[in-house]
Amino acid sequence: MGDAIVTTAKPPQIAIVGGGIVGIILALGLTRQNIPVRVYEQARGFREVGAGIAFSACARRCMELINPAVVDALRRCGAVSISDDDDSDDYLRWIDGYNQHLKDDPTYQKPLSQISGGGFRGCRRDQFLEELEIDVPPGTIEFGKRLEGLEQAKDGRVILSFADGTRAEADAVIGCDGVKSRVRQHLFGTDHEASHPQYTHKIAYRGLVPMDRAIDVLGDWKAHNFHHHVGPGAHLTHYPVANHKFLNVVVFLSDPNPWPDYNNMVAEGTREEIEIALRGWHRTVLDLVKLLPDKMITWALFDLGEFPVPRYNTRNICLAGDAAHASSPHHGAGACAGVEDALCLTALLGQVCATPPPDGDYVRALGAAFETFDAVRRSRTQWLVNSSRRVCDLYHQSEWADPRRWIKAETCFEEIRDRSYKIWQFDADDMVQRTLADFERRLAKESNGGVTVH
Amino acid sequence: MGDAIVTTAKPPQIAIVGGGIVGIILALGLTRQNIPVRVYEQARGFREVGAGIAFSACARRCMELINPAVVDALRRCGAVSISDDDDSDDYLRWIDGYNQHLKDDPTYQKPLSQISGGGFRGCRRDQFLEELEIDVPPGTIEFGKRLEGLEQAKDGRVILSFADGTRAEADAVIGCDGVKSRVRQHLFGTDHEASHPQYTHKIAYRGLVPMDRAIDVLGDWKAHNFHHHVGPGAHLTHYPVANHKFLNVVVFLSDPNPWPDYNNMVAEGTREEIEIALRGWHRTVLDLVKLLPDKMITWALFDLGEFPVPRYNTRNICLAGDAAHASSPHHGAGACAGVEDALCLTALLGQVCATPPPDGDYVRALGAAFETFDAVRRSRTQWLVNSSRRVCDLYHQSEWADPRRWIKAETCFEEIRDRSYKIWQFDADDMVQRTLADFERRLAKESNGGVTVH
Repeated sequence: MGDAIVTTAKPPQIAIVGGGIVGIILALGLTRQNIPVRVYEQARGFREVGAGIAFSACARRCMELINPAVVDALRRCGAVSISDDDDSDDYLRWIDGYNQHLKDDPTYQKPLSQISGGGFRGCRRDQFLEELEIDVPPGTIEFGKRLEGLEQAKDGRVILSFADGTRAEADAVIGCDGVKSRVRQHLFGTDHEASHPQYTHKIAYRGLVPMDRAIDVLGDWKAHNFHHHVGPGAHLTHYPVANHKFLNVVVFLSDPNPWPDYNNMVAEGTREEIEIALRGWHRTVLDLVKLLPDKMITWALFDLGEFPVPRYNTRNICLAGDAAHASSPHHGAGACAGVEDALCLTALLGQVCATPPPDGDYVRALGAAFETFDAVRRSRTQWLVNSSRRVCDLYHQSEWADPRRWIKAETCFEEIRDRSYKIWQFDADDMVQRTLADFERRLAKESNGGVTVH
Repeated sequence: MGDAIVTTAKPPQIAIVGGGIVGIILALGLTRQNIPVRVYEQARGFREVGAGIAFSACARRCMELINPAVVDALRRCGAVSISDDDDSDDYLRWIDGYNQHLKDDPTYQKPLSQISGGGFRGCRRDQFLEELEIDVPPGTIEFGKRLEGLEQAKDGRVILSFADGTRAEADAVIGCDGVKSRVRQHLFGTDHEASHPQYTHKIAYRGLVPMDRAIDVLGDWKAHNFHHHVGPGAHLTHYPVANHKFLNVVVFLSDPNPWPDYNNMVAEGTREEIEIALRGWHRTVLDLVKLLPDKMITWALFDLGEFPVPRYNTRNICLAGDAAHASSPHHGAGACAGVEDALCLTALLGQVCATPPPDGDYVRALGAAFETFDAVRRSRTQWLVNSSRRVCDLYHQSEWADPRRWIKAETCFEEIRDRSYKIWQFDADDMVQRTLADFERRLAKESNGGVTVH
């Protein structure tokens, strides 16, 4: 290598499609490095429902590396531990939600397993997004931009066209546009199975219960700490929210039937549906369900697990977050994986800009960067999609209902522990090193005319 | 603590039921520490079929800690790498055994995944056992001793009675008597589901093919290296044996039907059965199957996966190896797990003898030792039983036969890799430390009248 090349080449323009949490975090990673970026969001303004979201300690480490402003935003929206105020207790606990194990104590639920180390901090999605946007330079996010088409220009740049008739150009496009991603449809065609969300055959009902009423049913300690109540064909998860003023209760049911329409993932539901599904369950679970409202929303859970995306990149277009690997929520790690993606892309695009090509043509380097992204991220994130389905199936094992199979049922927790640790013990700094090394290898290979350099 | 107590207490007498590989390795671990041990074996002499067995690097580390004579015995029977002579290549490789991916090259099989790090060394079971027995002190193994009953004497010792009308006594009994363990039946009763082997719904056919004929079909490189050919409802595994003079070929088929009788796990089979099951598979696989003999043995694969053992210990009686956690062979780790057990027990019984109780009554200390064994070993080994079934199900995914599902099918390898590493990267030295620490805690707790000491 000769002396460092001093260049006045303009940095490449990046377009992010989708202004959800992952898109905005990625934008913050790029603007921090002075990389020009535009975010195109189809909604006109607020666009996240008020539901909760939690980030693991390793996702927060990713945020710190992306841009410390992201961690600040999370802190500002009052992110709190999902368990007791005592920070040292961040256990997830699984208890038997079905069987009565002690005849003389009908409130007793058998503890099945507990693990700690996730370090989850939860907050409201809409609040977090609002806080994130404070740090995005004005004019970066364009609202009301519904993507219609992507076209490769002759010079390799990408032309985006929107439903409002406008167009935009960029050196690279990153689709952070969620489970129903238009960018993904563009890459694979609308006929491709991976272009559409896939039903996981699980539905969820969510509700908030005032903490004092929850304590009447669960007792003080259980009400203030995260618990999964597992049983045949269903599980119920609860944890405190809003400074322990409310208990967030989520009931997940297995559903053998198809879901009529992936364009509409919610339906009107009732508490009675839950009560029918949980007939015969432990009294504590049934008493808790009684505290939910009569009318509820049924959330159908979709992912990309049946027909995963073949690859996350095509030339200078790539997919990240749910657009690439939408997951069911059972590991609480879908958004965390998107944050890992954002870190990987932040590192790559930073490197692309740090070494501008002599001819000012970034398209090749961006293509190599996205190749690296696919190589580093696809296997782990598709594993996560599978794993989330798998742990839910283990929670819903029919074995819980058969005393002869209880021993068998409980052997699942070693696997669940391993899967959780794989997610939580992710080494963000190491991923950045692996990413940059892989990218360097690819660039060296390209400049050697395709010969692999070891 | 006061001064060290000098004692002349006799060490406890240990009875091992079953003189298979795990029983003999455990006996070598005990005799090395001068712990009196008797092995009761129902067969009159040789008792292992000539099939192969392989030990991972971590199993060999366990052997070294148990007794270096075990590693020597393995070396003497000519244990060799299961892949190419080049020791640096110890990869397991998975290739598509079903689909034709390149129309212009019918020998091409798509590589799906490869991982290394197992460090497997294979040999013949019967040879290894023969070499092991050379180092066992004469008179330690009693042949022709078929266990009939176990009885607890008033002083807590155990009385073993045998089918030949003889009896024996011991301070502790360890059942290393395999998947059909009599000791297990004694502990749980013959009516208990865990007392009997459970059909995994997989059958296996094994055959040896002369290497030159195998090379004609597979090519030189593939024939000399370990491969799994995977596909819908079946897989075929091969690796070189006998100094690369032969290729060991094992075909595994899924079988939805029940197996008539767990007392007879083999049946007469034919090559034609395999050919019918593999109809439509890749030409290379079918050509290899043609080299198998017309008449073959069908091996039904049993384990303890449907009804796992509730616990591995009851007072001073315990189960180890297949008797506790017989596994299907798909991780190649069943015997390795038994060797880990033997190390755990060797460490525990060494500690029991190193600190003889003042009253010479070992029964309580042995009970605590077996409690520790159960706590340290049960979760990992029952996970292994599940995992072995799971990876076989992944090899046999119906997805391999559907081009729209190939991407999905291939996402399984991240999980298979994690599972393999969990087995191979086991830290034997760390297990010994954890074992001794747990045992010490239990003893301290007992001597405090049951109060937990932290």
